[in-house]
Amino acid sequence: MEFTHFNENGRAKMVDVSEKPDTLREAAAAGRVFMKAETLKLIEQGAVKKGDVLAVAQVAGVMAAKKTGHLIPMCHPLFLTGIDLNFNIDRERFCIEVEAVVRTLGKTGVEMEALTAVSAACLTIYDMCKSVDREMVISDIRLMKKSGGKSGEFVRVESK
Amino acid sequence: MEFTHFNENGRAKMVDVSEKPDTLREAAAAGRVFMKAETLKLIEQGAVKKGDVLAVAQVAGVMAAKKTGHLIPMCHPLFLTGIDLNFNIDRERFCIEVEAVVRTLGKTGVEMEALTAVSAACLTIYDMCKSVDREMVISDIRLMKKSGGKSGEFVRVESK
Amino acid sequence: MEFTHFNENGRAKMVDVSEKPDTLREAAAAGRVFMKAETLKLIEQGAVKKGDVLAVAQVAGVMAAKKTGHLIPMCHPLFLTGIDLNFNIDRERFCIEVEAVVRTLGKTGVEMEALTAVSAACLTIYDMCKSVDREMVISDIRLMKKSGGKSGEFVRVESK
Amino acid sequence: MEFTHFNENGRAKMVDVSEKPDTLREAAAAGRVFMKAETLKLIEQGAVKKGDVLAVAQVAGVMAAKKTGHLIPMCHPLFLTGIDLNFNIDRERFCIEVEAVVRTLGKTGVEMEALTAVSAACLTIYDMCKSVDREMVISDIRLMKKSGGKSGEFVRVESK
Amino acid sequence: MEFTHFNENGRAKMVDVSEKPDTLREAAAAGRVFMKAETLKLIEQGAVKKGDVLAVAQVAGVMAAKKTGHLIPMCHPLFLTGIDLNFNIDRERFCIEVEAVVRTLGKTGVEMEALTAVSAACLTIYDMCKSVDREMVISDIRLMKKSGGKSGEFVRVESK
Amino acid sequence: MEFTHFNENGRAKMVDVSEKPDTLREAAAAGRVFMKAETLKLIEQGAVKKGDVLAVAQVAGVMAAKKTGHLIPMCHPLFLTGIDLNFNIDRERFCIEVEAVVRTLGKTGVEMEALTAVSAACLTIYDMCKSVDREMVISDIRLMKKSGGKSGEFVRVESK
Repeated sequence: MEFTHFNENGRAKMVDVSEKPDTLREAAAAGRVFMKAETLKLIEQGAVKKGDVLAVAQVAGVMAAKKTGHLIPMCHPLFLTGIDLNFNIDRERFCIEVEAVVRTLGKTGVEMEALTAVSAACLTIYDMCKSVDREMVISDIRLMKKSGGKSGEFVRVESK
Repeated sequence: MEFTHFNENGRAKMVDVSEKPDTLREAAAAGRVFMKAETLKLIEQGAVKKGDVLAVAQVAGVMAAKKTGHLIPMCHPLFLTGIDLNFNIDRERFCIEVEAVVRTLGKTGVEMEALTAVSAACLTIYDMCKSVDREMVISDIRLMKKSGGKSGEFVRVESK
Repeated sequence: MEFTHFNENGRAKMVDVSEKPDTLREAAAAGRVFMKAETLKLIEQGAVKKGDVLAVAQVAGVMAAKKTGHLIPMCHPLFLTGIDLNFNIDRERFCIEVEAVVRTLGKTGVEMEALTAVSAACLTIYDMCKSVDREMVISDIRLMKKSGGKSGEFVRVESK
Repeated sequence: MEFTHFNENGRAKMVDVSEKPDTLREAAAAGRVFMKAETLKLIEQGAVKKGDVLAVAQVAGVMAAKKTGHLIPMCHPLFLTGIDLNFNIDRERFCIEVEAVVRTLGKTGVEMEALTAVSAACLTIYDMCKSVDREMVISDIRLMKKSGGKSGEFVRVESK
Repeated sequence: MEFTHFNENGRAKMVDVSEKPDTLREAAAAGRVFMKAETLKLIEQGAVKKGDVLAVAQVAGVMAAKKTGHLIPMCHPLFLTGIDLNFNIDRERFCIEVEAVVRTLGKTGVEMEALTAVSAACLTIYDMCKSVDREMVISDIRLMKKSGGKSGEFVRVESK
Repeated sequence: MEFTHFNENGRAKMVDVSEKPDTLREAAAAGRVFMKAETLKLIEQGAVKKGDVLAVAQVAGVMAAKKTGHLIPMCHPLFLTGIDLNFNIDRERFCIEVEAVVRTLGKTGVEMEALTAVSAACLTIYDMCKSVDREMVISDIRLMKKSGGKSGEFVRVESK
C-alpha cells in the first residue's frame, strides 16, 4: 500500500491521469455543524422569514466546489457538470447536516469537490452565526458515496 | 440575540466595520482527521523520509487562510500578518490533529481564517491519502482561542 | 484634462497612491435588469417562497466586490470594510433595480467596487433567469454617490 | 415556465449537464459605455498614440470571460476555446460599443462568458476614464447571438 | 511570419481552437536559480532535515501551473492531467535547476503551463531564501520539450 | 544565518510581521526575454502599429503583482499602492528588458511583487510570440533596488 501523490524523489506531484478514460463520476459527501439549541432555532427562523443563513451557505458550497483545484494542491482542475447541496436540521443532536453531491464526466473522481463543498458550507454557517455562538463545532466531514471510474462504487456503511 | 450579517431586507451583507479601530488580533483553531492505523503509519513514515503528506497540507493551510475572503461570502478581506500550522500525530485515537494560528492588525477577528486554514489542511491530508483510505473523517474543527477586538479574549474550555 | 492611468511611455499603470492619507470612503452604484413581465413575476414569487434569485445575486455581488482588483486591471486591491446590496422590483418599467454600497478606510475610492458588485448581481440575475428569458438587458450601471478623499463628494443628479 | 437553477428545497444548484453531448457553442454579447464628447475624444486619441484605454479593456474582457464560473455562482466552469472582443466608437451617440464573441466545445452555452467579458471591458473603460468623467453610464448589455446546443440558434432582433 | 494572438483590429484575442482535435500533449520546461554557495548549502541541509525550501517550491509550482490561464492573458484555460517538478542541485554552478513536466489531453499545448510552473517554483525559492541572499538571479527559463498537436515534437538542442 | 520561513518543526510558515511598523516600501526588479532578431523586429513593429505584444505584457505584469500572495505560498497578502512596468528593446543583445516598480505602505517589502510582475510580463511575451519563436529564453530576473523597512536600502551593483 502506497501513496500515489509522490514522485521518485518523494516530492508531491499531481498524478498523471492522461490515459484514463472519461467516465461519468459522482460523489456525495456530508458533514455536520453542532451548535447551541438557540442558535439552531435562529437559523430555522431565518430560513422561513428574514435572514436565511443556509441560502448563503448553499452558494458558498457551490462556488467552493469549483475552486477545489486551487485549494487542494495536488487535486486536478475539473469541469464539473453538476453541484447540489442539501441541509437537514437535526433538532435532537442540535446540528445542521450538510450534504453535497457533485458530478462530472472526466478522468478523476470528484470526492474532493464534494468534501470541499461541504467544508465551505459548514464554515459559512459558522461565519454567519459566530456573533451568537462561537463554540460551534464542524464534524463528521466524510465521503458518503462515490461512483464511476476504475475503483468502482463506494458506499459508506454507518452504524447509526 | 440576533445575527449581524443581514440587512433590513433580510439579505446577507458584509457587516460595516469602518469605524472599528485597528487592533492586534489572533485566533487559533484546531481539527482532527481520523483514519486507519495503517494510514497513520504511512504518514508518519513519509514525514521522516520520502513523501511528506504534512508538508503539502501545511502549504495548503497557509494559502487557504489567505483566500478566506474569497471562500466565505460575508467574510472581510484581510491583510494577514502571520499564519502558522502545526500537526500532532495522535497514535491512540488514530488521528492527526491540526492547529492553525493566524494574526492580523485590523478591524475584524481572524477566526474564519484560522478555521479555513485547518479545513484546507485536513482536506489536503484526505486528498493525499485517499488512495489508501477513503473512510477518513474530518472532525472537531473548532475555535480554540481568540484575542483582540471589542469582544475580548475567548479560550475554549474542553473537558478531557 | 488627461488620463491618470498611463505612464510616460503611454502604457497602463496602477497609479501610485502611497502618499495619500487613509480616509473613510463610500460609494453607491446602481443598475437595472430589464425583462419580460412574466420573468419579473417569477422572480417575485421565488423571493417569497421557493427559489430566491435575488438571494443568489446578493451573494454574487458581495463576493465580486472583493474581487474587483483582480477583474479591473489597474484597480488597487483594497481592504473593504462594508458591502451591501439592495434590490427593488419596478413593476412599471419591468425591471429589477440593483443598488450597492461599499465602504473602506483607505487611500482610493471604492466606486469600481460598487460598480462591480452591481454588474455581478445583474449578471447573476440574468444567469438564473436565462432559461425563461434570454432577452433581458442590463442597463444604467452608474455611480450614484461617492464620498471621502480629495475629490470630495459626488451625488449624481438624475431627472428621473 | 420555471427556473431550472433551484433544487427541490428551493435552493440554488448548479444544474446537472452530465448527460448533454459536447457541441460547438458560440455566443456574442454587446454593451455600451455612454460618456461625454470630450471623454470619447480622449479615448480616440489615446488609441492612436499614447495611452490606449481599449487595449486594457480588451485584456480585461478576455481574462474576465475565463473567470465567469468564479463570478456567477451557478455557472458551470468551462474550457473556452476562443474569446475575442471588438470596440466601435459611436460619435453620434457618444458611446463605445463593446462586442464579445466566445466559443467552446462543451455541454453548456457560453452566453454568460460573453456577457461577463462585455461587462468587465465596460467597467475597465469606466475605471481608466473616471478621473475625467465620473458620470459615464454602462448600458445595453445583452445577448446578441447564440448557437449550438439543444435550444438552437438565437439571434436578437433589434429595431434601429 | 505573423503573430496569431491579434484580431483584425490589432487587438489581442484568445485564439480560436474549437476545431482542433484533442490530442495527448506534454511539455517540459526548465530554469535555474543562481545563488551564493552558502545559500545553496542551507537549502541542501534543509532538504535533508528541518526546513525544506524545495517542498514548498514544489507545491507552488504545481498550483501555479493550474492558474496559468488566469496569469497569462491570452492563454486557454485547460484541464491538466498531470504536473510534476524536479529539482537538481548544481554545486558547480551554484544553482538549483528546476524542471517541470505538464500533460494534458486537449486542443492546445501546455508549454505555458510548464514555464509558469518553473517560474513560480523559482520565485518561491527566492522568497524562502531572500532573508539570507537578496542577490539570487532566476535565469534560463525555457522550453525543453513539447509533443502532441499539429506542430509536432520539439526538443531543445543545447550545447551545454 | 538562517531561514526565517520555518517554524520549530521545520515546516513552512508565513512569518509574523504584526509588530513591524508601516513604512513606505518600494522595490524594483528586472528581467530579460532573449529571442531571435526577427521576433524582436515583429514586436517592435507591432508596438507602433497593429498587435502590441507589450501592451498585453504590461497588463499581465500589473495583474500578477496583485496576485503574488496567492502564487508564492509564504508571501504576505499586501495592499499595493502603485505598480508600473517598463520595457526596453535591446537590439544588440536581441532581448526585451522588463522592469517593474512596486510600492506599498506596509509591514513587509514588495520585492516578491516586483519579481512576480516581471516574471508574468516575460511569460506573456513568450506566450504572445511562441507561434513564431519557441526558443526564447527568460533570464536575469533579479531584484534591482529596494527601500523602506528595517533592512534598509539595497541597490544591486552590476558590472556592465
